[in-house]
Formats: sequence, C-alpha cells, structure tokens
Amino acid sequence: MVDVGILGATGAVGQRLIQLLEPHPEFDIATLTASPASAGKTYKEAAKWRADTPMPDSVTDIEVAATEPDAIDDDVTLLFSSLPSGVGAEVEPDLAEAGYVISSNSSNARMADDVPLIIPEVNADHLGLIDVQRDERGWDGALLKNPNCSTITMVPTLAALDQYGLDSVRVSTLQAVSGAGYSGVTSMEIIDNAIPHIGGEEQKMESESRKLLGEFNGAEVVLHSMDVAASCNRIPTIDGHLENVWADTSDDVTPEEVSAAMSAYPSATLPSSPERLIHTFEELDRPQPRLDRNRGDGMAVSAGGFRRTEGGVQYNCLAHNTIRGAAGASVLNGELLLEEGYL
Amino acid sequence: MVDVGILGATGAVGQRLIQLLEPHPEFDIATLTASPASAGKTYKEAAKWRADTPMPDSVTDIEVAATEPDAIDDDVTLLFSSLPSGVGAEVEPDLAEAGYVISSNSSNARMADDVPLIIPEVNADHLGLIDVQRDERGWDGALLKNPNCSTITMVPTLAALDQYGLDSVRVSTLQAVSGAGYSGVTSMEIIDNAIPHIGGEEQKMESESRKLLGEFNGAEVVLHSMDVAASCNRIPTIDGHLENVWADTSDDVTPEEVSAAMSAYPSATLPSSPERLIHTFEELDRPQPRLDRNRGDGMAVSAGGFRRTEGGVQYNCLAHNTIRGAAGASVLNGELLLEEGYL
Amino acid sequence: MVDVGILGATGAVGQRLIQLLEPHPEFDIATLTASPASAGKTYKEAAKWRADTPMPDSVTDIEVAATEPDAIDDDVTLLFSSLPSGVGAEVEPDLAEAGYVISSNSSNARMADDVPLIIPEVNADHLGLIDVQRDERGWDGALLKNPNCSTITMVPTLAALDQYGLDSVRVSTLQAVSGAGYSGVTSMEIIDNAIPHIGGEEQKMESESRKLLGEFNGAEVVLHSMDVAASCNRIPTIDGHLENVWADTSDDVTPEEVSAAMSAYPSATLPSSPERLIHTFEELDRPQPRLDRNRGDGMAVSAGGFRRTEGGVQYNCLAHNTIRGAAGASVLNGELLLEEGYL
Amino acid sequence: MVDVGILGATGAVGQRLIQLLEPHPEFDIATLTASPASAGKTYKEAAKWRADTPMPDSVTDIEVAATEPDAIDDDVTLLFSSLPSGVGAEVEPDLAEAGYVISSNSSNARMADDVPLIIPEVNADHLGLIDVQRDERGWDGALLKNPNCSTITMVPTLAALDQYGLDSVRVSTLQAVSGAGYSGVTSMEIIDNAIPHIGGEEQKMESESRKLLGEFNGAEVVLHSMDVAASCNRIPTIDGHLENVWADTSDDVTPEEVSAAMSAYPSATLPSSPERLIHTFEELDRPQPRLDRNRGDGMAVSAGGFRRTEGGVQYNCLAHNTIRGAAGASVLNGELLLEEGYL
Repeated sequence: MVDVGILGATGAVGQRLIQLLEPHPEFDIATLTASPASAGKTYKEAAKWRADTPMPDSVTDIEVAATEPDAIDDDVTLLFSSLPSGVGAEVEPDLAEAGYVISSNSSNARMADDVPLIIPEVNADHLGLIDVQRDERGWDGALLKNPNCSTITMVPTLAALDQYGLDSVRVSTLQAVSGAGYSGVTSMEIIDNAIPHIGGEEQKMESESRKLLGEFNGAEVVLHSMDVAASCNRIPTIDGHLENVWADTSDDVTPEEVSAAMSAYPSATLPSSPERLIHTFEELDRPQPRLDRNRGDGMAVSAGGFRRTEGGVQYNCLAHNTIRGAAGASVLNGELLLEEGYL
Repeated sequence: MVDVGILGATGAVGQRLIQLLEPHPEFDIATLTASPASAGKTYKEAAKWRADTPMPDSVTDIEVAATEPDAIDDDVTLLFSSLPSGVGAEVEPDLAEAGYVISSNSSNARMADDVPLIIPEVNADHLGLIDVQRDERGWDGALLKNPNCSTITMVPTLAALDQYGLDSVRVSTLQAVSGAGYSGVTSMEIIDNAIPHIGGEEQKMESESRKLLGEFNGAEVVLHSMDVAASCNRIPTIDGHLENVWADTSDDVTPEEVSAAMSAYPSATLPSSPERLIHTFEELDRPQPRLDRNRGDGMAVSAGGFRRTEGGVQYNCLAHNTIRGAAGASVLNGELLLEEGYL
Repeated sequence: MVDVGILGATGAVGQRLIQLLEPHPEFDIATLTASPASAGKTYKEAAKWRADTPMPDSVTDIEVAATEPDAIDDDVTLLFSSLPSGVGAEVEPDLAEAGYVISSNSSNARMADDVPLIIPEVNADHLGLIDVQRDERGWDGALLKNPNCSTITMVPTLAALDQYGLDSVRVSTLQAVSGAGYSGVTSMEIIDNAIPHIGGEEQKMESESRKLLGEFNGAEVVLHSMDVAASCNRIPTIDGHLENVWADTSDDVTPEEVSAAMSAYPSATLPSSPERLIHTFEELDRPQPRLDRNRGDGMAVSAGGFRRTEGGVQYNCLAHNTIRGAAGASVLNGELLLEEGYL
Repeated sequence: MVDVGILGATGAVGQRLIQLLEPHPEFDIATLTASPASAGKTYKEAAKWRADTPMPDSVTDIEVAATEPDAIDDDVTLLFSSLPSGVGAEVEPDLAEAGYVISSNSSNARMADDVPLIIPEVNADHLGLIDVQRDERGWDGALLKNPNCSTITMVPTLAALDQYGLDSVRVSTLQAVSGAGYSGVTSMEIIDNAIPHIGGEEQKMESESRKLLGEFNGAEVVLHSMDVAASCNRIPTIDGHLENVWADTSDDVTPEEVSAAMSAYPSATLPSSPERLIHTFEELDRPQPRLDRNRGDGMAVSAGGFRRTEGGVQYNCLAHNTIRGAAGASVLNGELLLEEGYL
C-alpha cells in the first residue's frame, strides 16, 4: 500500500477523494491538508461533511495539516490535490520540488508545456512528459494534471472519432451545480433557471481537448489541429454533465460507425477504470444525468443520440462530473503513476 | 372589435390565449372549442385552469363548443388554433374552407408549400402566400401558421445576421417543461435531470428556420440555403427557452457588430409586438430564463454572450416559449392578418 | 430458495421490487405479472425501465403473465403485490384463496379486520391475524399488507415513544414525487412549487398508525387510542419523505430521552432489516432527504430536531419512500412470513 | 409626496423595496444606503441587480450613502430598513434618536417592550406604543417593526380565528429559498432536498405571533395566551411560504365557519393593502406557492384545506415571503405611519 495525502481535503472534491480512497486497494490516506484556519483540528472538526454516505471512521480523527512540505507525513509519496487554483499555483511546485508526486485536479498549470495533462484511457503516453519536467525543473517529484470536468466528459468520445480526422468541434454543455463546489451556485440563481456562462470554462474545453488529443513527440505535446468552440451552461441538476457535440470529420462517417467506434474504444486496466469506457445508447433520449451518471461507479462515459450532419456527426455525451470529472480522474492518474513506476 | 374563437381552448396554450385575448384591444372572445367530451359544458366546468392569474370572468360561463364549423358563433371570422397537430390536420382545412381565417400554433402543415409560416417582425411579406393558397384550394378563409417555440426563439436573431451571409447554424436548446404541455413531462423525468431529446423538435428547427428566412417570389417561398443542425434538450425550468447558437457567415463579422445588428433589428407596430424586438446584454451570464423571459411582456427575444469563432460568431438567445413561442405568436399573427386586410 | 412472483411488475414499485429481489439471498423471481396489454411480452418489451441501475439480465426475457391464479408459475408460493388498489381489491382475495401467500403494498384492505398490517420491527406479533384470516375465509394462502409510505416513515419513531403514553400526534409531511408513481406528478405541477394535498394520504396516516401500534389479542387488533391528525404535502424531491411530528405524551419526557429511546429501539434480524432501525442526529438540520434517504440501504429511518413542547416533544423523521416505504417493506414482510413458517 | 430612504438598499429585500417604492403614490426614494464598501458609488455600480424586472432608471445614478444619520438626505423623514439584524441593532436607535421614523424589516428588537410589531390589518392599534417609546427613550423619531415572513403568513388567519378562543397552534412551514436572501441557501443544499431547520425561525414564529395578537392596554402589549409550536423547513421553491396549521380553539367551530371567517376578515384601506386580505379556496390542493403567491400583487394571504380535528381545525395558508412577508410589509407599515400622523 502506498501512503497518500490529500491537499484541500475539506472541500467538495476533497470529500469525494476521501470517499474514493478510503476503500482503495493500493492507497492509504495518511495526510489531509487544508487552509491554515483548519490546521491542527481533527478532520471531523475541520470539515463540514456533505456527502451522502457517512464520513469514514478512518479519517475522523486525523489531524488536519497545513498545505506545505513540512507538514506532510514522511511516508507519503503521492499527493492528490484539489486546491483552489490560486493556491495550487503557489504550493504545488514547492511540493514537487520537495519530492512529492502530485496528481492534481486544480486548474492551474494544465496547459504548461512540461506538465502532462492525462486521461489514462486516452493519452497515457503523455506521461513521458514527466521526464522532460524533471529535467527542466530539477524536481525529484512531479506534477501531473487531469483536465476540467467538462473536458473529460467529451474527450473520450472525440478520441474514438479521431481516426476519421477531426476537423472541428462545437459543444454545448448542460452542467450540474456540484461542478462549482458546494457554495458555487446559490439556489436563487438556478431554481427554475439556467445560466449560459461559466467563467473560463469555454476556454478550458477549447484548449485542454487539443492538448489531450495532441501528440507527444518525446519532448513536447503538439496540440491537435482541430478547431473547438464551446458554449457552457449551468442547469439545476446535482451531478452529471450532459453535452451536445457536433464533430466535423475529414472522412465520411455514419452514425452507426461512430456509435460502434465509441463502444469499442478500449478502457484501461487500472483499478478505477471502468470495464467499458464508453457506454452507447440506442434510445434517442439517453444518456440522462440522473439515470446514467453512476455507470461504471461514476467512471464511465455515456453517449447517444447519434445523427448525421452535413460535415460529420452530432451526438450527446455524459459523465459524472465529481467522480470521472474530478476526484476519480485524479485517483485514476495516481494509479497510472504507480503502475508506470513514477512513485 | 373582431369576434374571435379559440380552438382547443382548455389546453395549456388555449389558457394562455385566453389570458392574452381577454384584455386585447382588437379582439373579443366569442367561441371556445374543445374535444367532444367537453362540448356543452361551461368553460369553468371543462377546463382545469392552471394559470397563475385567475380565470377571467368573461369566459367562465361560455358554453364550450365542439371543434367543427357548425358549432362556431356566426360573427366569428378569426380563429386561433392550439389543437393537437393530428386534430389540427383534420379540422383546420375544413374550417378554412368554411370561410374562417385561422392563425394556428399547431405543428401540422407548417412546411406545406402554400401555407404561410410567419413571424411578423421577420417575414410579414410571406403573407402573400395566402392569395396563392386561396387560388389553389378555393378557400374563402385561410390558414396561417406560427413556427415552433424553439424556432421562434432563434430566428429573429438569425434574421438580424442574414446581412452577413448565413452559411451554417448549429443550435443547442435548453427548453422549459411548459413547452410539452401541462402533462408532457413528468416530475420523475426531469427533477435533478435533463433529457437530450424532444421528439421531432430538431427537424422542426432545421426546416422551419429555412422557410422563415426564405424568399417569397410571389408564387412560393424559396428556402434559405443555410445548413441548420439542432440538438434539443429539456431541462427543469418552467418557462423560457434558452439556446446556444453558432452562426457561420460568409462575411467577416465581429461580436460587436452582431450585437449591434440584433439590437437595431426593427420590431413591428402591431399591438402585441414589443417596443424592442431583441434585447442584447453585455453581461456574459445573460439572458437567463427566470430573469429575462418576461421582457416585452414575454414577446421580446433576448441575446447575449457574443464571441467570435473561426467561422463566424456564437451567442445565446432566449424567449418566453408559451408567449412569444406559442400563444403570443398566434395572437401577433392574428393582428397582422387584421392589419393587412385578410379578415 | 423460495420461488416468488411480482404482481404489477412493470410499474415503479414493481421495478424497485425487481432491484431488491434479484440479489436476494432467500427469494428467486419466477413470475412477473402485469396488465393484460403486457401479458405475453418479454419483461424487456413490456416495461419501460426507469431505474438508475440497468435492468437485471435475469428478468429481461421472462414472459410477463396475466395477473390471475392460472398464469402463475406452479412453484411459486409467495407473491409480492404492487398492484393499483382497485385491481388489488379484486385479484388478491382470489390469489389467497388459490393458496398463494401475498405480501402486498397495495392500499386496499389495509384496515380490514382480519388482514395483518405489519412493520416487522414494530408489530410482528400481529402476524397471528393470519390464522384468524384463514379460519374465517377458508384460505390456504394469506394476505398481509405493509402500510403506506408516509405512515411507515413515522410509526417506528412513535413505537419508540409509546412507552411514555402517546396521547396525540400531529404530523406534517414533505413527500417526494416518486411516491405518486412515475407519472403521478407532472413537472408543471411541482417545479418551483409545493402541493398541500395528496388524495387519501391523511386518512391513511391517521388510521394505519393506530392499527400498527394497536394490540393483537389473539382475535383482533384493538386500535391504539391516540388521536392522529396529518397534513400531507408534495414537494420537488425525487425520493425520501420528510415529516415534522408533534407527539403529546401522558408522561413527561425530555428531548434527550426521546432521542435515546429512538436510537435504542431494536431492529429485527431479517435479511433486509437494517442493523440500526432509527438513526438519530444531534445536528439540528438533519435528517435531509438527499443526504439521509439511503441509510441502511434505504431501510433505516432517521430522526432529529428534538424539541420539548408544552404537551410532549416535536421532532423530524425521514425514510426512503420507495424502499422502506414500499418495495422494501413488502420484501421485509415476505422475509418475516418465511421466518415465521407461513410459506 | 414624502421623501424616504432605504437602509440596506443593495440586498434582496432592498431591491424589492425599490421595486415597490419606485411607482408608489405617496413616497419618493431620496436616499439609498449600504455598507461602507458601497458608499460613494452609484446604485448601479453598488448593486448586483437580481430582480426579474429591470432596475428603475430613477435609482441607477443615486449615490449610495453610508448607513448613518449624517449621510441621509435632509428632506427624508421616513426610512425603510432591511439591514442585517446585527447592523440594525446598532444603527436603528441612533437614527430614531436623530429624528427619523423607521419602518424596519430587520429582526432585531421585534420583541422589545416599547417597539410596536405591526401588521396593519391585524393590530394597527399597537401603533400607540410609539408614544410610550418616545416618552421612554426621548426620541423624536420612532422605530416600528414588521414580523418575520413566516409569522406574517400565518397571523392574519389566526386573527380571523381568535373570536373562537385560540388555545394552541402547531405550524409546519414549507419556506422558499428567497427568504434566506440571495446567497442564503446554496443549490447543493436544496435541489432534490429539503432542510428541516431554519435558525431562529421557530422561536420567531412562536413569540411574534403572541405579540401580534396580544392586547395593547395603553402602556404595553400583553402577549396572547395561546401556546404556539413551529417546525420550519426550507424547500426548493423560489418565492412563497406555505404553512400547515393546526389551531385548537376553546369554542367548537366547523371548517365552514373557519373558511367564512377568514374570507370575511377585513382588509385595510392603505394603498398597498389588498382588496381582500385572505383568499380562501374550496379546492383541496390550494393554495400553492407558484399559483397563488402573487394574489393581491403579492400582498394577499391565501388559505385552504380546512378540516375538523379533535381540538379545532387544521388548514393551509400561504403568502409571498418577500412582498407581504418583507418589503411589502415594511411599505404597508410606512403607509400606516403616514396615515396615522406619525411622520
């Protein structure tokens, strides 16, 4: 078992990380960090637990540490980070320099040249960028990122289509409120309403998807040439991001071929990877957030509604935004780091 | 004052028609029709009134008539139809032949060659198709349609853009449950959920928008050449359809020009037409259904979130789906028929 | 293993029964019945599966039977009934006469003198009424009922209080939409709304709770003398009934004693009974439907918010209405019938 | 016209006050105050306007003042206060001492012996307490309060029942999220959920209702002797508090008499008082928040669901919590102060 720490353990993603790591076959939670105000308290005192399962007994009495190198248990080698991006930008490099390997969900540095942005089933080979990173920065540790929740939902389906020559992508999202954190969206903002804007989200989808599908040439990741434009909306759902995608391809392709390609797209063999990565539906009205977000224990992607368009195909996809799209994505990247010998 | 009738007066759109027509300066409600099971009852007995304003006293004791030529008050010349499309397809031609002019919200026959499909502020000149219709069918009356609620929301904004050469449109909708009628969407289907499919809706948006922006040459409407692909979603809002649009244009155009063109797009001078047709926002997170659906008494369209894309521009638009998108659209078309001398 | 059948297997409660019985350690699903329109189809064809887990493979190809004695598999001895009450009133007596033992969730006959109404952890001794029933009716089989979902939520907490002398109960419910079946509440009725009436629900709570807490004297159940008045509301939640209770007792009792009495109230040892029957909270804002409905796999009751009042105590309680309140309640009663030798 | 000021003008209730006062026949908005951070900005800069009607032109350029005596326009005599209670407790006495008459919605000092707590249609005679207040405190101004939103919803219906001898009241509330202010309830807390606790709300309902129905004897208000116990819940609705009430009376009374007494209960003749104070329903499933909150422009109370109980009667009542329950209540009290010559 590998001793791990969680940075930012009291927040919504931090709580999900605890839910996923507590029963994990490879990882043991040894350190929980939070803001200075929480440091020194037990986790039970520091966290307002909001999950729909009880707080695991094994974490209730852990003393919360400050988020800094000296405060972390000596046996810990792997850190999962769900820090606010501003804090992450400051602290993560120090921790990597101090020798920790960090699987981070924070949005800072995702597009940095020497930081791998990884979905294991899609671009595990980008992991080689860690060697470049260590060379350049002189780090013993490493910093690896998973993409934004709305990006993760779409990219596996695009990966399955890339064989047909992806030219251009238009994507409209219907995103759940949990993506904004526990207090990110007030009830007055969203009941009987929808908000056609999520700050920075469109830019993230547009840039991160091109990096994820880009090619790693041993020295850098060359971005995919496709043109991506996103329009991001918040709607009154708790969990599960639903997305409408138009993908224009250079090759002619039928809706049936697209559905078959997604269904056949291989998963990984990591502990948290679902048996089937992309679940495809024949029913026209699926996937739906409440019915399909928990497929593959929240780690699978679903797709349906395939239709031919003038330039390619349109379809819908969905994933659980706080599992596959955040905490689960970080855990999966941690598993990959372990399997590939980076710990 | 013109005596008017409402076909299908007990349904959700029928109730909205009563709300709008009761205080109308030009129209008097003289006949209310419904299914055979309701005929002979007073309106109060026949209708389960669900509106958030009380049932107007002037209609409570009207005896509901069957939906057939003989049952309609002799003084009535104009009929507003909110019949289910199957019933509309059967009954509307008979009524037009019997001399009634029908402003219909039903989806049947919208794409028929000699049936005008009208948004008065956009294509009032298509009204000339009524003369073709009367010639061909030998009708004394006439049949005129307003488009589907999701189409109406988008088309005024496209009309403002057409000067830049519309090539292709991609549109994703976030539609309110009232668009499906009172019992169209169950609560179990939509709470904490979204449904990425509305039967026939995508096809309606794709064909109707090309007819509305097409050219009437005196004999027929030549469809606009743009390519339209829609993806339609139901979300947990009561009223107000929000739409994400990507419009590719042959001319280069900036987001600022697009916003200005929409803001300047002229309204009509009919009683129900709003002072300003398209309200544009600088705030990135507007329009929103709950905050903006009632602009112009529910008859205005709102737009915002303008961004440049590789092929043109993307933006969001919104309208009240049961006012501007259904009952109000029919009333407005009735006002146009009166002004243009077709009654 | 006991072969069992499900009456009304295509409805919402029927689907929950399949979810609970498919992995059951004692029961094997052998027969599924539905309305005549579905008889002869495979279950997959007959049922529109709405659950948030996939339809179990073991039931997809079962041929749906008509709901009548001759259509049921010969090896079946125990039937779970989720029939509409009108159908249940007609069919259940025939099936009991034909020798089947029926654990029924249908509301018919719950207050009949010789029909046991059972919550195993509360009044398992009422099961003796089956002997009275068989004597009087000459049945080989038997008919046993579980109470209404809103009644089950409250009665275990009252059972824990009865030692203090229950005089009078006032209860206000906040009930989830799933309690009305899949199409029972339309989205237009409930989004941004609440409905202060559920037909017949108040009467059910008032009479059933007095029977459940009544005394079985070997011949009949003498109703409890307490006065119960209920006010039932539907709110926009998917699952989980929350209830505010005022219980006036003849003995003086403190909130702390009430909480302790509930927490200590014994569960049963049946397979589906939760380890702890009533989970009590110190936090003032718990239990909450989304956070607490799944405790004990949906079979536990939660309670909190204890406060002293002039006549006794007030508190809140909650249970999962389609598990503990319906399908799970029937399964639990089936387990009790097996354990007590009635099969 | 009387020049008035709004204390705490940028908050949710402050915005409602602007909506109500802008078209008011007796009052002119002359001063808007807010926290020090906003002082000196124009109202347009200082307020994030969230109402569903546009910000009135007449207030956009008003320079926001600090909430202190010197900062208020000299011509202002009447102040409407929607300050946070902590701020209100500090500032309101200073302003009253400086000569301003304050109609306050803030919860501080509502139960103070010499502060009138008023619903004009119910206990306008308590206004005489201002003379006591001025005597005791030596103020030129005055401080008057309206009750909490959940209290206002219920008290007019109790006032109509008091003729039958109110002994005891049990009330369960289903309260809208707007009652907690714009950011008071997060979406993660309330979607698909309900919260059975609102801090301090139960105590407010229990004490304020006894003061409102108490008797003013020229020197003090003697609290009503009835016993009140409340249980307060937050549910996912935007506006409109629904309440289930059990009222035990010393006289025997039928549901029909109760309904008639409420329907006949007199309104006031102030500009904002509704023509009919309590609207009663025969339909069992009314009142409902979305359908009935706007009756009487949001200033009427609705009641229905009358049933006999052992000790008296049970029923449901409803009012718009941010109009009748907050901003509108303060405006109405301002109108009463003007009419009674206290300005």
